[in-house]
Amino acid sequence: MPQPINVDEKFAGFTDQWQPKRIARLNDYDVRIVKVQGEFVWHKHDDTDELFLVWQGRLRIELRDGAVELEQGEMYVVPRGVEHRPVADEECLVLLLEPSDVVNTGDAGGDMTAAIETL
Amino acid sequence: MPQPINVDEKFAGFTDQWQPKRIARLNDYDVRIVKVQGEFVWHKHDDTDELFLVWQGRLRIELRDGAVELEQGEMYVVPRGVEHRPVADEECLVLLLEPSDVVNTGDAGGDMTAAIETL
Repeated sequence: MPQPINVDEKFAGFTDQWQPKRIARLNDYDVRIVKVQGEFVWHKHDDTDELFLVWQGRLRIELRDGAVELEQGEMYVVPRGVEHRPVADEECLVLLLEPSDVVNTGDAGGDMTAAIETL
Repeated sequence: MPQPINVDEKFAGFTDQWQPKRIARLNDYDVRIVKVQGEFVWHKHDDTDELFLVWQGRLRIELRDGAVELEQGEMYVVPRGVEHRPVADEECLVLLLEPSDVVNTGDAGGDMTAAIETL
């Protein structure tokens, strides 16, 4: 029988931060979840928008000309080509939606670049 | 300044059932929200998968060979071409993710076909 995907249970399955996990696929898109805390790297995705939905906690998405403050149950779509930096003062659980070939650090690369595992 | 999209506030903005509303776009995909109660029509989408995330309540997605029972915080992706029928005994709030050109009733058409408004 087909099984539901329980998002809380998926989050309970790992502790590492800034390492997105794929929990579902929709065509050539991924639903990913990630635990974040602290500052990510400034980056952009030239070929795609990126959706952030805060599942638990608070997330600030810094943009070059401001910032978006997201609380639990709030989402924001960073348009393609727009530089952004996710920042969380305390651990925040985030659901991401983006094409399956998206690299988390976009054009920036570096140490925070993650291979996307499937949970 | 860019503003977050608060999903609860969006749900508070309407009362009609089975009429999905677009609350965000990501490339050529929509994030839609819908209030459902009762039985929808059997249908399928030949060209796309469709993601259901239960925001509040309980949803049963009937398939020809079984059913998936979703509670709050659970999701399921109905694969393309698979006949399905969403059913909710009590009102259920659902977040949908699908390409922007998807018609809610798929191949079935009929009275429950909705024009997608943006909220």
